[in-house]
Amino acid sequence: MTLALDTAAQDLLFREAHTANAFTDEPVSEEQIQAVYDLIKLAPTAFNQSPLRIVLVRSAEARERLVSHMAEGNRAKTAAAPLVAILAADNEFHEELPTLFPHFPQAKDVFFSERAAREQAAAANATLQAGYFILGIRAAGLAAGPMTGFDFAGVQKEFLDDDHTPLMVVNIGKPGADAFHPRSPRLSFDQAVTTV
Amino acid sequence: MTLALDTAAQDLLFREAHTANAFTDEPVSEEQIQAVYDLIKLAPTAFNQSPLRIVLVRSAEARERLVSHMAEGNRAKTAAAPLVAILAADNEFHEELPTLFPHFPQAKDVFFSERAAREQAAAANATLQAGYFILGIRAAGLAAGPMTGFDFAGVQKEFLDDDHTPLMVVNIGKPGADAFHPRSPRLSFDQAVTTV
Repeated sequence: MTLALDTAAQDLLFREAHTANAFTDEPVSEEQIQAVYDLIKLAPTAFNQSPLRIVLVRSAEARERLVSHMAEGNRAKTAAAPLVAILAADNEFHEELPTLFPHFPQAKDVFFSERAAREQAAAANATLQAGYFILGIRAAGLAAGPMTGFDFAGVQKEFLDDDHTPLMVVNIGKPGADAFHPRSPRLSFDQAVTTV
Repeated sequence: MTLALDTAAQDLLFREAHTANAFTDEPVSEEQIQAVYDLIKLAPTAFNQSPLRIVLVRSAEARERLVSHMAEGNRAKTAAAPLVAILAADNEFHEELPTLFPHFPQAKDVFFSERAAREQAAAANATLQAGYFILGIRAAGLAAGPMTGFDFAGVQKEFLDDDHTPLMVVNIGKPGADAFHPRSPRLSFDQAVTTV
């Protein structure tokens, strides 16, 4: 065994998991999302800044508003998914930093007094957390369907505010019939990794 | 069990894993990194663009060059870690796109003919993959020490080229004595998640 992670977990998170384009009707509970969050919140971000914010789109009315901002090819599946989450970066994460990074509370002012620096850090670190979130959804035995095909300005205006930048929309549920495209090729180790 | 992932795997990847600041002398083998890569390459990116590139800094000479570009507080641990990886985004990922996304080979020209669009997509998707990589290192029973405290332009010039943008440097190894800071607080579910 080269990896310490057991094979069943490797399969659940990576080998047998696929981006889903269709889902069963089985609901996704608040408890499931809370368990996912309580796991993935532990994974690291720079200065523990934790800028990921999640909007769970549960009501029919909100779902309809979201679907209208999705790209044509993403509408039907976003309308039908048991749960849809908008992942966003909080550009004002520094307000929480003295609590989140107590051993250097000055970080808020030393590194993040400028909005441009915050936007850059929030986008990078919330995207890192989006990676944890996608694997966390799989850890709950669910499939994720992450999408960037939507009107970002429209979603921001409709569901967020000037301080929160949308990153992606994720359909969540148990995969339904014909949920998966065949897996496309990946770059080999030698194509992606070099040694110096 | 709210989560499908077994408790031992939850602990390995999230609960008992911490960012490491000190390592034992035990080497990190090529086989371990290859196993990590072969697992995390399967997790999703937009259009399967897979823009993450990894430079493993193994030689003493290369390590010395890298350390000189690290922020003061990151130098000693980067010099001492069994393995150090530079994670970068390939801004010319579109060249591989007809292979990586064979059911819509036109994506290369339709969405990514402009360098600015490629840089934006490469940074976001390689960062997503960096999240997978950090968890992948933990899946190998190793600890990761991701850092953004370094001279980005210097590292790019020294180890990459104009087409590859550094994202972070990651120390990798078995955690040594006093490797971990106490875990800082995280945002609660209600602070990070809203429902509409």
